[in-house]
Amino acid sequence: MSLTLHPIGHVRGGRAEPVDDAWDAVEAEIVLDPAQVAPDAALGLDAFSHAVVVFVFDRLDPTKLERGARHPRGRTDWPRVGILAQRGSPRPNRIGVTTCSVLGVHGLRIRVRGLDAIDGTPVLDIKPHMTGFDPRGEVREPDWARQIMQGYW
Amino acid sequence: MSLTLHPIGHVRGGRAEPVDDAWDAVEAEIVLDPAQVAPDAALGLDAFSHAVVVFVFDRLDPTKLERGARHPRGRTDWPRVGILAQRGSPRPNRIGVTTCSVLGVHGLRIRVRGLDAIDGTPVLDIKPHMTGFDPRGEVREPDWARQIMQGYW
Repeated sequence: MSLTLHPIGHVRGGRAEPVDDAWDAVEAEIVLDPAQVAPDAALGLDAFSHAVVVFVFDRLDPTKLERGARHPRGRTDWPRVGILAQRGSPRPNRIGVTTCSVLGVHGLRIRVRGLDAIDGTPVLDIKPHMTGFDPRGEVREPDWARQIMQGYW
Repeated sequence: MSLTLHPIGHVRGGRAEPVDDAWDAVEAEIVLDPAQVAPDAALGLDAFSHAVVVFVFDRLDPTKLERGARHPRGRTDWPRVGILAQRGSPRPNRIGVTTCSVLGVHGLRIRVRGLDAIDGTPVLDIKPHMTGFDPRGEVREPDWARQIMQGYW
């Protein structure tokens, strides 16, 4: 079974190459494709401070994805965990999901900050960040998950 | 341009039909497909209290999606906003992203609670919920976004 999806737009600007850290310094635009969405598809998104962007790490070789377990960032001092228990990019379907700041919306151009996707990245979906979708109940994560985020933004 | 994706598994159990509310009462399993992932793909996911699940609203007719603006849930007392400024399901690419509780991991079977996807739904990705990916800076959302979530979980 397979699913055919069409990017609704692309990231324009920001970084040309992926790096691991300091993404909150990066501003970019998401330019929506008028063949995929109507002119008012992003109307009202700027009433939200943040958006959730679903994108594809399209520069990764699809034959070199991790489908099992590995040490995050190759750090053997961190546990070896499944690719679905970490957020590394070379994962099945190469999908990234990131909450970033919405700086402004101008028709089909959405200005964002802190989107960890490089120039040209295809975008599959954008959703408003609604606090009602935050996790319910106590949140727990392992130590390595906090350590890996130091410096990321 | 199009992208071909392969579900890594499916939701099994839980609700058979979509409804708008009380999803946190629902438990289900995500059963991963051994043709797509290795046996240790979810190893360590249960060290996290929550996971982010990326799925496809596959029961929606792809010819009847909203590509412009509408009133969320048809509520004309709420503003008419773009489909990318709301979380309604009939959206381009029909992608859902939800943070749910991880109840347990048994090989390629992940038991979850509060996943608002019905029995049989294809899953494209699962990521651990890491607090480091929470929104940075002040969070702002319009009143209707809080009202629509009352009773959802």
